[in-house]
Amino acid sequence: MTDLVITNATVVTCDAMGTVIADGGLMVDNGRIERIALSADLEAAAASARRVIDGTGYILMPGLINTHCHAADSLFRGLVEDLPLEPWLQTVWKAEGAILNPETCRLGSVLGFAELLLSGVTTVMDMFWYPSETVKAARQVGMRVSTGGIFFDPPGVTGHDLEGRIAEAEQFFEEFGAAEDVFPAVLPHGAYTVAPENLKAAKEIADRHGALFSTHAAETRAEQADITGRYGRSVIRHLDHLGLLDERTVLAHCVHLDDEEIDILARTGATAVHNPMSNLKLASGFARVPEMLAAGVRVTLGTDGAISGNDLDMWMALRLAATLHKAVSAKADAVSTAQALAMMTSAGAAALNAGDRIGSLEPGKLADMVLVDVKRPHAVPMFDPITHLVYSTAKSDVRHVFVGGEQVVRDGVLTRHAIEETIEDVELLTPKIAASIA
Amino acid sequence: MTDLVITNATVVTCDAMGTVIADGGLMVDNGRIERIALSADLEAAAASARRVIDGTGYILMPGLINTHCHAADSLFRGLVEDLPLEPWLQTVWKAEGAILNPETCRLGSVLGFAELLLSGVTTVMDMFWYPSETVKAARQVGMRVSTGGIFFDPPGVTGHDLEGRIAEAEQFFEEFGAAEDVFPAVLPHGAYTVAPENLKAAKEIADRHGALFSTHAAETRAEQADITGRYGRSVIRHLDHLGLLDERTVLAHCVHLDDEEIDILARTGATAVHNPMSNLKLASGFARVPEMLAAGVRVTLGTDGAISGNDLDMWMALRLAATLHKAVSAKADAVSTAQALAMMTSAGAAALNAGDRIGSLEPGKLADMVLVDVKRPHAVPMFDPITHLVYSTAKSDVRHVFVGGEQVVRDGVLTRHAIEETIEDVELLTPKIAASIA
Repeated sequence: MTDLVITNATVVTCDAMGTVIADGGLMVDNGRIERIALSADLEAAAASARRVIDGTGYILMPGLINTHCHAADSLFRGLVEDLPLEPWLQTVWKAEGAILNPETCRLGSVLGFAELLLSGVTTVMDMFWYPSETVKAARQVGMRVSTGGIFFDPPGVTGHDLEGRIAEAEQFFEEFGAAEDVFPAVLPHGAYTVAPENLKAAKEIADRHGALFSTHAAETRAEQADITGRYGRSVIRHLDHLGLLDERTVLAHCVHLDDEEIDILARTGATAVHNPMSNLKLASGFARVPEMLAAGVRVTLGTDGAISGNDLDMWMALRLAATLHKAVSAKADAVSTAQALAMMTSAGAAALNAGDRIGSLEPGKLADMVLVDVKRPHAVPMFDPITHLVYSTAKSDVRHVFVGGEQVVRDGVLTRHAIEETIEDVELLTPKIAASIA
Repeated sequence: MTDLVITNATVVTCDAMGTVIADGGLMVDNGRIERIALSADLEAAAASARRVIDGTGYILMPGLINTHCHAADSLFRGLVEDLPLEPWLQTVWKAEGAILNPETCRLGSVLGFAELLLSGVTTVMDMFWYPSETVKAARQVGMRVSTGGIFFDPPGVTGHDLEGRIAEAEQFFEEFGAAEDVFPAVLPHGAYTVAPENLKAAKEIADRHGALFSTHAAETRAEQADITGRYGRSVIRHLDHLGLLDERTVLAHCVHLDDEEIDILARTGATAVHNPMSNLKLASGFARVPEMLAAGVRVTLGTDGAISGNDLDMWMALRLAATLHKAVSAKADAVSTAQALAMMTSAGAAALNAGDRIGSLEPGKLADMVLVDVKRPHAVPMFDPITHLVYSTAKSDVRHVFVGGEQVVRDGVLTRHAIEETIEDVELLTPKIAASIA
């Protein structure tokens, strides 16, 4: 007996062929997609399934993948405003230092992950202090997370020295290396906060475990100037010179790249995560997305933290990824809707070295899926479902979300966790957060 | 006995002082705001009011004002994609010609206005064929509209010659000149589609009635080149030379302006309507918003039509107005949150020459107001309510909307009109719309 059958939906598979089924659905068994088919061909399976969902009026699509986030920073949403990255970071770090501990990190992560999951994000790459708390938070709401030990040369929130960072990173693999819902990583903060030898130490740990490596890179002009001044090479060249770039490397931002740096990313297979809202708001600039795509760089999509954003809205990021670069380049076809959609689905999965498990609706893959209501006044008529997802869909159109076949959002409400409790806890903490930078 | 008292809300008045009341509310009588006060001072009024709303967990703010829209174009949402303005317009006009008549214009307008009202827009300036149908549509959902006869030298949808256009414009004033819910206007399409003498004829009608005048202006580089080639003057200079610019003139887009053109807008008092999403998607470019604000130009906010956008999301427009120009100018304070918020409230009202009636919560003004839910996972904590509205609020946070004291949206649902019927009618028409450009 099949666990779940969804029929009568517009299925946007996000597979390599861009397959769309106007009236179709799928079968889920043991948390995996068993079959994708026309609705007519699912009738027999539906008749004997444990659960059947009528997808009429919905797009069925893979769960979204957010490849750059700091979910716990949602605690500081709207606290520090209208500053460029560098002075902004100084204030942010002051607030973080005063507020963050394992408990508050988990609280903030639950808040951020709840927001993400409600908008259809089923997997997130998250960089933050106390990564095992991050995993606990993800499990509390029921989503997958890619995270791990961070590297940061100053003491930061946890006060570790290099040995402590290494121990934490190794410990993470011991705890979560075998988990199906965790994509383990090592996440040094950036070339301007982590010395070359420490970046290399982080990468060695990642490599030893066949794991992901993620860091901030080339977010601002000031960062490029800083790194070039210190090491005689621009950020991407510096990372390449240190041997840190390969297909398991995920670089957040990549805003200020010259043509040769783009070529380095293409050659090494490293991923560039586009975080358009953060880049706009912090005045960082416009990533050269069309040029990166043309050069064959894998470009994915992220929200960054809500302390910059000020939310974790992947639909907003998608819309911006598809439109911003049209205005920048004065070309109305600068980024196609298919390219934009791939950034938060199939390309995101490939960046996490998990293209065999997530990122598209295909038989054998994990049943991470989203049902998007397409009968809203802001969203009819629909001529093409991909255009529709990219240009007309809002986060509030996401009604049902499944992770590994489990329904974790039902009609816009989390099923595993009462978010009201988290909101209450956050509000109790709010006066202390406000006072932290006073 | 007071009609309505709202208490316990965070009141963002959008008045000239930027008054915010952390725990306050207001009294409404006969469709107007009678008094704004601390919650504690509203207890007596609440005790004897016909209706009391507990605003706990909400921001209470004035209704949003969208100063550039073509609501009926929502029928064509997603139909014509990824083309620059000029070839895009040719295809759009083909579809409009095949589909539009008074009935479909009204249908599309209801669809668009429903979307706007549900997101908190209580007044919209709308340019479209059959303006009396536009008014009927606005009344069907219960919002205010600024519209009137359009001028367009080719036959267009209605097939009128100049005399017909003049007659339609005059007729509109006869029908709606005295209505409280209509801000009458004359709306020639643009300097590239309306000859100088016809633009002047349109302005003469507007002036005779003390009414608004609105047109597209300086949206693209191609338009600037076209007008300069034809008339020896750039668009704003051309309009100024024709005597069309004053405080009752509303110019949509104003993307490509030189410093002198910005000065002309400032000197004449004409309004520039910023439509960021349309400008991005059609690859038109980035309006010089910080420069216009610095020069004292009145800048307001619009969505343009959903055929470009692809939705009518003023919150998206607000977010973009507050963030885009930071990245363009590399200045993280390029546009302040207060400036951005004013664009869709007080400045919008001033543009419609209605600053005495709408655009802020003040005693004596019409009770056009919105309650925004601030207890959402994507929206807590809240440190500053204005920051919150600009950077964290989504259209789906709008729960209750009032126009002239009447509740027209209750818990996210229109009270006057069953939108499902409109959606059904639009979907019946969809195959014919798709075929119109085949």
